[in-house]
Amino acid sequence: MTRMVNAKEDFVSEALEGFAATNAARVMPVVGAGIVRSSQCPKGQVAVVSGGGSGHFPAFAGWVGQGFLHGAVCGNIFSSPSQAQVLAVARAADNGGGILFAPINYAGDILHFGGAAEDLRAEGIDVRMHAVTDDIVSGTPDKHLERRGIAGAFLVMKIVGAAAQAGKSLDEVEAVMVEANAQTRSFGVAFGACTLPGADDPLFVVPEGRMAVGLGIHGEPGIDEVPVTTADEATDILMDGLFEERAPVAGQRVAVLVNGLGSTKYDELSVVYRRVAQRLAAVGMTSVAPVVGEFVTSLDMEGFSVSLTYLDDELEQLWLAGANIVCFSRGQVEDDAPRREAVQGLGNEIVEIPEASDASVELAAKVAAAMNRVFDAMVSNETKLGAIDAVAGDGDHGLGMVTGARAAAAAATKICDAGAGAGTTLSSAGHAWSDVAGATSGALWGAGLVAAGQALGDTSAVSPQLVAQAVRAYSDAVLNRGGAKLGEKTMVDAMVPFADELAAQVQQGADLSTAWAAAVKAGDAAAQATADLASAKGRAKLHGARSIGTPDAGAVSFALVVAAIA
Amino acid sequence: MTRMVNAKEDFVSEALEGFAATNAARVMPVVGAGIVRSSQCPKGQVAVVSGGGSGHFPAFAGWVGQGFLHGAVCGNIFSSPSQAQVLAVARAADNGGGILFAPINYAGDILHFGGAAEDLRAEGIDVRMHAVTDDIVSGTPDKHLERRGIAGAFLVMKIVGAAAQAGKSLDEVEAVMVEANAQTRSFGVAFGACTLPGADDPLFVVPEGRMAVGLGIHGEPGIDEVPVTTADEATDILMDGLFEERAPVAGQRVAVLVNGLGSTKYDELSVVYRRVAQRLAAVGMTSVAPVVGEFVTSLDMEGFSVSLTYLDDELEQLWLAGANIVCFSRGQVEDDAPRREAVQGLGNEIVEIPEASDASVELAAKVAAAMNRVFDAMVSNETKLGAIDAVAGDGDHGLGMVTGARAAAAAATKICDAGAGAGTTLSSAGHAWSDVAGATSGALWGAGLVAAGQALGDTSAVSPQLVAQAVRAYSDAVLNRGGAKLGEKTMVDAMVPFADELAAQVQQGADLSTAWAAAVKAGDAAAQATADLASAKGRAKLHGARSIGTPDAGAVSFALVVAAIA
Repeated sequence: MTRMVNAKEDFVSEALEGFAATNAARVMPVVGAGIVRSSQCPKGQVAVVSGGGSGHFPAFAGWVGQGFLHGAVCGNIFSSPSQAQVLAVARAADNGGGILFAPINYAGDILHFGGAAEDLRAEGIDVRMHAVTDDIVSGTPDKHLERRGIAGAFLVMKIVGAAAQAGKSLDEVEAVMVEANAQTRSFGVAFGACTLPGADDPLFVVPEGRMAVGLGIHGEPGIDEVPVTTADEATDILMDGLFEERAPVAGQRVAVLVNGLGSTKYDELSVVYRRVAQRLAAVGMTSVAPVVGEFVTSLDMEGFSVSLTYLDDELEQLWLAGANIVCFSRGQVEDDAPRREAVQGLGNEIVEIPEASDASVELAAKVAAAMNRVFDAMVSNETKLGAIDAVAGDGDHGLGMVTGARAAAAAATKICDAGAGAGTTLSSAGHAWSDVAGATSGALWGAGLVAAGQALGDTSAVSPQLVAQAVRAYSDAVLNRGGAKLGEKTMVDAMVPFADELAAQVQQGADLSTAWAAAVKAGDAAAQATADLASAKGRAKLHGARSIGTPDAGAVSFALVVAAIA
Repeated sequence: MTRMVNAKEDFVSEALEGFAATNAARVMPVVGAGIVRSSQCPKGQVAVVSGGGSGHFPAFAGWVGQGFLHGAVCGNIFSSPSQAQVLAVARAADNGGGILFAPINYAGDILHFGGAAEDLRAEGIDVRMHAVTDDIVSGTPDKHLERRGIAGAFLVMKIVGAAAQAGKSLDEVEAVMVEANAQTRSFGVAFGACTLPGADDPLFVVPEGRMAVGLGIHGEPGIDEVPVTTADEATDILMDGLFEERAPVAGQRVAVLVNGLGSTKYDELSVVYRRVAQRLAAVGMTSVAPVVGEFVTSLDMEGFSVSLTYLDDELEQLWLAGANIVCFSRGQVEDDAPRREAVQGLGNEIVEIPEASDASVELAAKVAAAMNRVFDAMVSNETKLGAIDAVAGDGDHGLGMVTGARAAAAAATKICDAGAGAGTTLSSAGHAWSDVAGATSGALWGAGLVAAGQALGDTSAVSPQLVAQAVRAYSDAVLNRGGAKLGEKTMVDAMVPFADELAAQVQQGADLSTAWAAAVKAGDAAAQATADLASAKGRAKLHGARSIGTPDAGAVSFALVVAAIA
């Protein structure tokens, strides 16, 4: 269990504060956003920035240091960081040589890192982005680049960090990233679940005496569940899978990582490595400078994974190069001087309030009240949403929606009290949601609310037609940003029926509350259909290679939000 | 749970094999005994050797490396290594500059390291020995040197390792050891138990929602049990205790370790460190290069401790010096060349078999059969003995007795089959027991059986008198070696009544089987009295500062052994 918690909403920031205070010689905080090196990198050195949800320590904050990452963006527990967080860390990590974004492949991370990359490119900074996709159970070999990223990210980041440390250009570092990811494969197993900070119950259940083969690092379902075996038999399941994915070749040199998820202990991991080494030796492969320990944890989850990177001469040289991070050191790295510039954290930006009509100011109060009702609805449904999400996803959807809705309600209330119109109030709610919440839902709700606010404006007369247009703008923004289509078991499945019904009702001359109620009903029916599917455990397999995001739960939470607004 | 296990009796050796294979750049195995550096230390450098039971990784094998330990002796899980293991590691670690033995304070470790120190001194090697005694709940401040050693050992070893690495003399390194231990204090808390490899149930129970204040790293009872609190409140309990032990002084500089026991995760430890830093700052103390992570674990136990070393200029310089071990690196350490000499592991020594009388050879078969019955009895009672031991001790007594009795039975059978007499057969059983089993019980049973075998001889006619003499020799050897007295809740409490009754019966002319049966009865009655006491949880407090060994269970196992021999 995760027990040493004060207020659960402060857990991540307090952990980062403690981590940065402990490791001041290596790192410094980007307050509210993540961690960067506290050393002064040579000007022009490519900055390698990764990150993702917290709860995986030492990934990702503990990977920052010489010969490894330049910056780590730290989201909430198991939730991707927000675009604003990515931007803040990237700016603090930038050495003027361009930036490589190297998230691990989850929908929310790709959205937020991708959005930040666009923003930085617009400012003239050269940013490349490639995700780590090493988990062999999460997609077929021909779709390697669509798979989830797990512990193999440690191997990839070590190699890419060495390339940047060696002074290679952004083109070269990017090529190393693509090649290292192409050569890296992981396969894991879990015996027991983890418990989120402040929660009384585990996030999911692995029945006692069973082991979940291929279970994801947020508890995403695996491909099989079998009785717990001996260490050698369990290791053989993973080695057989890795050899099936890629037939072993005598003489091949490999970097090996045996990674513990939290509660599987060091001695057990050493017993596992012993078997890995036997299996590699039996096929004539050579294990080069293997690493055994906890490098990508899932809080206190029980389980482990085996990762292999197939080395050529260049990758091997980079794998063996010096590095010095809190959880790992190798060889010698020349010390950089301490960093001189200050680092800008995530601040409260001052927003200028545009002129607004009296009617719009009046509506703004209703918008702010609605956002507060949305927050209350999310608090009431946090556990339920998390549980739906945990069936096929990572269980963070409830927490993400609460975090985002809290920020949105606070921002809407504040700017409305300062005299803003309805459009600005709604847009501010959207900006706050995505800045604070992170996760896939944060990106989509942020983009959607901002678009709706812009459609609403601060001066137009309020009409059912205008509201329907704002909802359509919301819907279009979500469709554009998320890339999901109707029927893919996402929030889109509730959102599109809702927007369609609202538009149809308004066109037929219904008043706003009648139209909205009918639309809520349509969205809710669609959402329930999704959630029914979600309750069938086997359906996780429907997602296959796409199960790197938050399905189903998004449709349900959408239905809850629009019901709360009514 | 500890799950990744093949045969449980192979767990420690397989883990060490995997560990050594993973970390060949830093360490090499001393087969069957432990780990030494794989680098070639400068001639004349003092060798610092620690060690103890396994299950505490990275303590102790993971502490071997430049700027830290030269060797780690690795016993069975939670059991001290044997004297033969200590000797093998010490010889492999020796650089010709003398050896500092720095075990942490448990009775079995002191026995075996102490015995090995005597042997080495007899060979002309200068060996000093001081134990780490940092756990403030295990004794009163005026008896600091009688306390248990826990995670603070990491701070002490780091400092002592730096002193040796700097080329200081044995006198100087010893003085640093004494001073570092005198300045180091720890206090811990646990939320949940650990499970021994191969066991289905945890070693002890901390009720759900409660935390055991001061619980030992093998589950030895603490001083209080309170509801689980917030991270800050739990940390405050420990800081208050440390400040009560030694009043804070503004301006004092301290090395800080926040250590996780296995399942309490990194982010939680960072949240705890944040509070530690606040508490130190509030009294004007300065935290110097703090360390947060898992450095002394207890398999998968849930809990953590806070350790402080009060620094003067010399200790601070040594604390900040370079070091490079698998779990920790700091600054730069100049690389030594790879080691050239071979290292001798624990081998099967060839014993010359002395001449024996026919009667003694006949008796030898009975001795071997009896040792096999003892082994069976220990297997049947392993769980029971472990449970009694876990009340006030570390729960390893059942495993230790099984391991020792197995080795003793095998050795007795082998040498008896080769034609040895009764005395040699019994002595061989004793040597095998202490070489293989380690732990307090291993040392005592080894010394006792060897002495009994010598008294029995290979040529004397067998008589009840001779057997009573052999038992008395056993008893005297145990009393000498262990130092415990009647009434201190050790095996002595059953052994002395047994030996006395046997001698009295024999003197009264009873035949051997009558005399032995009466003696068994006397020993058993005494053992039961001890075990009854043991079942009362509160009695752990009886031991106070002496609870660093295996009480009670030894009396019960003694009674079982003599009953099996009958």
